[in-house]
Amino acid sequence: MNILIYNEFFHEQDPNERAHAVYPNGMHNAIADFLREDQELHVRTVTLANVEEITEDVLKQTDVIIWWGHCCHDDVPDAVAERVQEAVLNGMGAIFLHSAHKSKPFMRLMGTSCSLTWRESDDMERIWVTAPYHPIAAGLDRCFEIPADETYGEPFGIPTPDETVFIGWFTGGEVFRSGCTWQRGWGRVFYFQPGHETYPIFFDPNVQTVIRNAVRWASPVRRTADCMDCPCLPKAHKGTL
Amino acid sequence: MNILIYNEFFHEQDPNERAHAVYPNGMHNAIADFLREDQELHVRTVTLANVEEITEDVLKQTDVIIWWGHCCHDDVPDAVAERVQEAVLNGMGAIFLHSAHKSKPFMRLMGTSCSLTWRESDDMERIWVTAPYHPIAAGLDRCFEIPADETYGEPFGIPTPDETVFIGWFTGGEVFRSGCTWQRGWGRVFYFQPGHETYPIFFDPNVQTVIRNAVRWASPVRRTADCMDCPCLPKAHKGTL
Amino acid sequence: MNILIYNEFFHEQDPNERAHAVYPNGMHNAIADFLREDQELHVRTVTLANVEEITEDVLKQTDVIIWWGHCCHDDVPDAVAERVQEAVLNGMGAIFLHSAHKSKPFMRLMGTSCSLTWRESDDMERIWVTAPYHPIAAGLDRCFEIPADETYGEPFGIPTPDETVFIGWFTGGEVFRSGCTWQRGWGRVFYFQPGHETYPIFFDPNVQTVIRNAVRWASPVRRTADCMDCPCLPKAHKGTL
Amino acid sequence: MNILIYNEFFHEQDPNERAHAVYPNGMHNAIADFLREDQELHVRTVTLANVEEITEDVLKQTDVIIWWGHCCHDDVPDAVAERVQEAVLNGMGAIFLHSAHKSKPFMRLMGTSCSLTWRESDDMERIWVTAPYHPIAAGLDRCFEIPADETYGEPFGIPTPDETVFIGWFTGGEVFRSGCTWQRGWGRVFYFQPGHETYPIFFDPNVQTVIRNAVRWASPVRRTADCMDCPCLPKAHKGTL
Repeated sequence: MNILIYNEFFHEQDPNERAHAVYPNGMHNAIADFLREDQELHVRTVTLANVEEITEDVLKQTDVIIWWGHCCHDDVPDAVAERVQEAVLNGMGAIFLHSAHKSKPFMRLMGTSCSLTWRESDDMERIWVTAPYHPIAAGLDRCFEIPADETYGEPFGIPTPDETVFIGWFTGGEVFRSGCTWQRGWGRVFYFQPGHETYPIFFDPNVQTVIRNAVRWASPVRRTADCMDCPCLPKAHKGTL
Repeated sequence: MNILIYNEFFHEQDPNERAHAVYPNGMHNAIADFLREDQELHVRTVTLANVEEITEDVLKQTDVIIWWGHCCHDDVPDAVAERVQEAVLNGMGAIFLHSAHKSKPFMRLMGTSCSLTWRESDDMERIWVTAPYHPIAAGLDRCFEIPADETYGEPFGIPTPDETVFIGWFTGGEVFRSGCTWQRGWGRVFYFQPGHETYPIFFDPNVQTVIRNAVRWASPVRRTADCMDCPCLPKAHKGTL
Repeated sequence: MNILIYNEFFHEQDPNERAHAVYPNGMHNAIADFLREDQELHVRTVTLANVEEITEDVLKQTDVIIWWGHCCHDDVPDAVAERVQEAVLNGMGAIFLHSAHKSKPFMRLMGTSCSLTWRESDDMERIWVTAPYHPIAAGLDRCFEIPADETYGEPFGIPTPDETVFIGWFTGGEVFRSGCTWQRGWGRVFYFQPGHETYPIFFDPNVQTVIRNAVRWASPVRRTADCMDCPCLPKAHKGTL
Repeated sequence: MNILIYNEFFHEQDPNERAHAVYPNGMHNAIADFLREDQELHVRTVTLANVEEITEDVLKQTDVIIWWGHCCHDDVPDAVAERVQEAVLNGMGAIFLHSAHKSKPFMRLMGTSCSLTWRESDDMERIWVTAPYHPIAAGLDRCFEIPADETYGEPFGIPTPDETVFIGWFTGGEVFRSGCTWQRGWGRVFYFQPGHETYPIFFDPNVQTVIRNAVRWASPVRRTADCMDCPCLPKAHKGTL
């Protein structure tokens, strides 16, 4: 299985940022490190500096893309966002983390505002499993805690999820649909809310379990070559899909 | 519009119960009182003592039923539960309050366990609007608070709701999908979690707004005479539904 | 209620096209004519020639937009498509007819390929009501027939609809989800498949009933000023939505 | 994997019935035969005569149950239907075939009328894949044909499916959502419409592919011991689910 991790890698390169202290090598490498413990996963990373490496060919060979972005959403070229969207529609899985709710590929796939409310106040977040049967929740207890996280609050401007796997509770008083799935075309999409750059959230064992589970779940069963095609077909045509 | 309120009316009749002090005339009358302020609503109440008044004829004339039950679920005859279920499938609206999540009609309509976790510890509940566009949320702010409520926690054993209108946050640390809608047959179903018998929750203006909105929303657009029928029809039969 | 009808008005202006004979004044005027029979509806039309009239201000005053496009999808400026998408997310209703499945605003709202298969072979289409309780199906029989229509076939590359109101059956052997609804942000979206430019489909009484019903159903209950906003809010902020 | 096939085995035992000629050993054995070609599947069958063999213990060891019933629905004891329902809610997969739409376990899991229209007129059915990405559709072409089948027509009185995998087209003019999935509790449910007792449908390679795929898809990822339980839990209790 081929996993591609995109991280804009901005906050972590600024030596004056808390993110630099927490993730000196970037969040993409923190995620890649724990995924690589699984020998079946071949993990590649890409950052904004080389975002054009996300070519159509690379995406065709990618089973699941993981996306982290925040303040550089606009710097991702539209053509790259469109390629990622189409690759998902053709069957590639996609996992969007935290502030990627406003990334171009996620917004294109949702079609909605993807808005929410937020606050940085070191709230503790308790994440509840609302779909205990879901493969993404395998190995988790009823709830798990993130000692400190950026607070995200409802309403979250998304289409009704196919399944709401997690709902988060924040000490400051908010709730948030922290884990949501959608089928989009032939591909599976998972949004997971934890993961602010200033906290060591991607070192958390429960968060790693979720991402590992999500990678397996989002991995394509079947792919298509070009789902954008609108073929003119003879009557009751039985050709292959 | 004809509204029928069912309340088992058990806790409130026990002079040693807190419920007696809060609702001396029963929760059904508390709800009926504020609904009757709307001149367009004709409100009737029924309790466990006369539950057999919920006849097929009465249900046919009922636009929306409101149901509160808790420790007497099993005393509701199966035939009554079946009549309510079929009336909903034929188009009647239904609003299930609080502990009615384990009532016979609700469980029949959902087909699932309707289980949850719970605790009586005077938690404050803050209810967030997650579907601000929904008619049931009209007139509400971003969130409203119930000063003290029984705590309900996830996972809630329901089919994925058509829409999750509210999610509740409890001081004790839980979250709950506190307002959910489902289309069932020709009828609309709304579950609303607040309403424990020992708190004056049905006197709360926001709770009253929700129930008033839900009554309007659940009121049938169209009804059918017998949705259980499986007719044998000629080819491409265009008859009326 | 303010209704805005967009039609690219291309085929109908070509005197050699069958569309010219069927709709000499354009499909937008055919639709406007029957909607104007309802005195409560104020109907305005716009074509590709003056598509820039679809301004933010106009959209703010529009309750429901109706969209017909086919071979000029690409000529609609991205900025117009984005304005329409955002207006829907802010609460405006939208009805997409026939080949508008590949229009920019619809594709943006869906986030998917919106692909399908097609054929022009004068198939008769029989449209079945699959959600008889739905307001959009009010006044219809079990099914109704379009004597000749372009054939559209599955798979239709859309997100799972909130409700599938109609499924079409074609003499040539295809099926199609011909009437689908989605909530997107604060707005309601309806896709309706009949309406090829070479057939007098918009003069059909059943088609007119569907569009009239859909206009009522899609009309906003509540709107928001700017759903794209992601506000930073203090703890448990109760402000208005 | 343990598969349990229930078939009422009524029509096939009557020497004057067409079903006897097509399935002299019963449909359950026809289905068991092709499933047993997969060495990983341990297949057991049960008929109405020994329906009480469907005990709680047997269900706990069953990964997926397959159910065929028609004119003997009422003879299945309520206790058996309840056991099957609860086993699904606890995680067992369930596949309901053809006229099992009115079986007790299916109706309990759906909560709706499960009604439809029908006709026996030897219609050919063409089944279209509407969710080509779905594991249940793996290995199928765009559509496949059942040379003769009982006709089922919409509206089908079910809750909106999580996914509509197939839609059927009948020569007589009807359409039907012929393959539908629902998550119910911890279990997965699939309804598949073909399979009238008088046609050799369970010998059809495409039908066998669908059932084989569905068995894999419905097989539980995780199970729970007793999803009906409503535990009283301390604040933010993190115990295992």
